[in-house]
Amino acid sequence: MFIAMNNFSVTGGKESDFEETWKGRSSYLQGVPGFVHFALLRGDQAGEYISHSTWVDREAFLAWTKSESFVAGHRQAGSLMGVLKGPPVVRTYESVIDEPAGQRAPA
Amino acid sequence: MFIAMNNFSVTGGKESDFEETWKGRSSYLQGVPGFVHFALLRGDQAGEYISHSTWVDREAFLAWTKSESFVAGHRQAGSLMGVLKGPPVVRTYESVIDEPAGQRAPA
Repeated sequence: MFIAMNNFSVTGGKESDFEETWKGRSSYLQGVPGFVHFALLRGDQAGEYISHSTWVDREAFLAWTKSESFVAGHRQAGSLMGVLKGPPVVRTYESVIDEPAGQRAPA
Repeated sequence: MFIAMNNFSVTGGKESDFEETWKGRSSYLQGVPGFVHFALLRGDQAGEYISHSTWVDREAFLAWTKSESFVAGHRQAGSLMGVLKGPPVVRTYESVIDEPAGQRAPA
């Protein structure tokens, strides 16, 4: 399992605008090979958000970043820039342990 | 959906010890009400790890933190302290968008 997190810091008072912009976007992720799950997460600290995507492995994520789906999804990103304190920060992770409810599976 | 991330910074050279300690632990999460998924994530930056747990909602997570399962799981934590640069940092998140492969569901 591979997870990519894009960390956003939203200007105070612009949280609703940020969330509505995301809700109005298409992720263009359905049908992308190796895509498992997408979430937009709201942190408990004010203005903290994560765009959180899960993939079967790093290769699937990297292939997506070079795909038409990635370009289509990110073409919409310009509308977010006005509500951010700075550029988003990407962090990526590989699983060492992967344990869904109901089983304990290899990473 | 609710995600809790406990962020660990591991001393250089101790990464294998840290991972093996986790692999030797029981999560005590199976059967806990509202538990969805657990992962130990290794970041691309040296020494960066996240204990990443997913829950149906915040209430399920909070109930777990007050349960016997939580005490049992964290009784094993002392063995990690020798390989960390400092205390772990917990961050918690609620989903605004929740889109698994195959569908786009409400958060």
